[in-house]
Amino acid sequence: MGLITLLSDFGLVDGYVAQMKGAIAAIAPQVQVIDLTHLVPPQDVAAGRFCLTSTCPYFPAGTVHVAVVDPGVGGARRTVAVRCEEAFFVGPDNGLLSGILAVTPVVAAVELTEPRYWRTPSPSATFHGRDIFAPVGAHLALGVPFEQLGRPIEPASLVVLDLPDCRATAEGYAGAIQAVDRFGNLITNFPGGVVAGRPWSVVLGKWTIPGGHTYSDVPRGETLALVGSHGFVEVAVAGGSAGQVLDQTVGAPVILIWQPSVDRH
Amino acid sequence: MGLITLLSDFGLVDGYVAQMKGAIAAIAPQVQVIDLTHLVPPQDVAAGRFCLTSTCPYFPAGTVHVAVVDPGVGGARRTVAVRCEEAFFVGPDNGLLSGILAVTPVVAAVELTEPRYWRTPSPSATFHGRDIFAPVGAHLALGVPFEQLGRPIEPASLVVLDLPDCRATAEGYAGAIQAVDRFGNLITNFPGGVVAGRPWSVVLGKWTIPGGHTYSDVPRGETLALVGSHGFVEVAVAGGSAGQVLDQTVGAPVILIWQPSVDRH
Amino acid sequence: MGLITLLSDFGLVDGYVAQMKGAIAAIAPQVQVIDLTHLVPPQDVAAGRFCLTSTCPYFPAGTVHVAVVDPGVGGARRTVAVRCEEAFFVGPDNGLLSGILAVTPVVAAVELTEPRYWRTPSPSATFHGRDIFAPVGAHLALGVPFEQLGRPIEPASLVVLDLPDCRATAEGYAGAIQAVDRFGNLITNFPGGVVAGRPWSVVLGKWTIPGGHTYSDVPRGETLALVGSHGFVEVAVAGGSAGQVLDQTVGAPVILIWQPSVDRH
Repeated sequence: MGLITLLSDFGLVDGYVAQMKGAIAAIAPQVQVIDLTHLVPPQDVAAGRFCLTSTCPYFPAGTVHVAVVDPGVGGARRTVAVRCEEAFFVGPDNGLLSGILAVTPVVAAVELTEPRYWRTPSPSATFHGRDIFAPVGAHLALGVPFEQLGRPIEPASLVVLDLPDCRATAEGYAGAIQAVDRFGNLITNFPGGVVAGRPWSVVLGKWTIPGGHTYSDVPRGETLALVGSHGFVEVAVAGGSAGQVLDQTVGAPVILIWQPSVDRH
Repeated sequence: MGLITLLSDFGLVDGYVAQMKGAIAAIAPQVQVIDLTHLVPPQDVAAGRFCLTSTCPYFPAGTVHVAVVDPGVGGARRTVAVRCEEAFFVGPDNGLLSGILAVTPVVAAVELTEPRYWRTPSPSATFHGRDIFAPVGAHLALGVPFEQLGRPIEPASLVVLDLPDCRATAEGYAGAIQAVDRFGNLITNFPGGVVAGRPWSVVLGKWTIPGGHTYSDVPRGETLALVGSHGFVEVAVAGGSAGQVLDQTVGAPVILIWQPSVDRH
Repeated sequence: MGLITLLSDFGLVDGYVAQMKGAIAAIAPQVQVIDLTHLVPPQDVAAGRFCLTSTCPYFPAGTVHVAVVDPGVGGARRTVAVRCEEAFFVGPDNGLLSGILAVTPVVAAVELTEPRYWRTPSPSATFHGRDIFAPVGAHLALGVPFEQLGRPIEPASLVVLDLPDCRATAEGYAGAIQAVDRFGNLITNFPGGVVAGRPWSVVLGKWTIPGGHTYSDVPRGETLALVGSHGFVEVAVAGGSAGQVLDQTVGAPVILIWQPSVDRH
């Protein structure tokens, strides 16, 4: 009967998220709505991009993902919907969608220029999430043809967020911490696929951390690197917080080298 | 198939909200439940009232709103349900409902005196949300006639919260900050309708802040006043937190004047 | 059409909870999912156990409870499902389920050894919640026979968490604070049934606190003990936080005595 996910930086204290859900229920009461998160740090498009990129792949085909981290609301940035083979995305064209679109082939994109699919033809200048994005997502989930949502745009014209990249070096890879999760795990931008098949370590700050497989590979309190459930290499402390123990956070440079860490003690 | 919203100050750490949802699912498993918020500051009836007032209007006709910020639970305050033209409200009679009822014509009200619509005839003395309000909401969403829920009471007898008012002055309006949202926007009690059609500014503490239209009207870091998505005049900092920058919070007096702010730098 | 609850320590900032919900929606899109909480303190099995124990009893018969506080993920601990008369439980065998199973007669238990009910036969070594527990819960909610989920195990072999007990003494009972809720209520491990029928008080730190019935029994700011909505004796401050006022927290020893508190002022 249709499935919509919602991601935003609206938090859980105010009624903003509920207003989006009310707008959806008024159009498509039988559609299921699942929260990705609403605790993206305020106006942090890069953090929203990471959550969207690592979470959407677990949803069934046909899901409509509505994402709103939108510091430019009411300004010149475009409002868009994107059709991929397996899912739809609706949100501001500010790079928020660029991570998931990099790994999901885009079929078509439109600018949201058709007010008949909005909550009101006079949307609030400060809350397109409620008045444009959520209603458009509801209509999509009900089966409104994608092309009717607005003016076609070139997928290649969608904004791509400029982020630190992961690049091959003579000794391995160089990249950066792209996210820190609730457990304090430091998530790099090294795709998990690069570490298959031979010993490896990660260099972060003054530490060299051995590559392992799971948290229970090492005693409680020890540091290890592993491929996390999001598919990227992460640095963890068994039973603790790597972010606190190593005093590192988003943006920190990190290096992956092809050698076991033999002398880390 | 019916829609219930829940608002409370129960937080998201404990199982209290889930207990209410379990009680609803046991009565009306096919009814959809949407959270307004559960992060109303503990026992802050005025904050719950604001969220309810600004959020309920976005829900479809027939929605049952269950609201529980209830410091007097187990004491003398009444438990009530209110029927409006477009929605139902269930909660303690302590002023929590008084904001939304001021803008939604009341058709009828009852005191909840019929234990057959409760979870148990011996409700917990400390948790009417789970044992009375949520079950009554579930029965309402299933179509139980409103009049059967209890003894009719006079709508005019419902408790109204005594809050700072917004009053016209010779130069404009005088009011107060009634809420601060996650972004640090300072939400006044001036209805948005008062600022249409001529230049205006807001005076808050030592600042005079120009009236604008949307966050992107001013450069990042600048302060502006505008009509927020909740329908009230708010003070914002583009890309920042007005609450932090201006060091103001709920209760601060604020003035609206009919003149552009020409010398604020 | 089936009901699943989710409890975890994954927090609400990252996409982990949504990944579990996506995995469920991919298998059982028509099943309702209700969050118990995802804010169990990271890796705090005892806190998760308390929330599960006090919340599950309010859900209808047939509910599938999936609980994941799993510091040993990827290690030697078993992954299990338990069938009770009224509900199913799915999670790690680390004591998380031991509170609710102590009050709910167990019919059968299995170790989750059948990969056809997982999201993938190669589950992430760090996220069994998404790849094993949630999918198994989805299949159970769809009606897959319990016995097919894996190898039968002896219910008596399930891990029981070693916690401070509540024991009878010459003067009453001796126990401990087992949880603190959002309101600062200090929840003991004295079952509410022990205080029926005669005057009683609670001794906590340097305070002797009179047993009462509800928060409004005493003036705002006063301390009292009462049977909370979870069914245990708790210490509360009317309109305030007992945790802060009394400076006590989880683990503090507490005594229940058969006498009114006459000289507490």
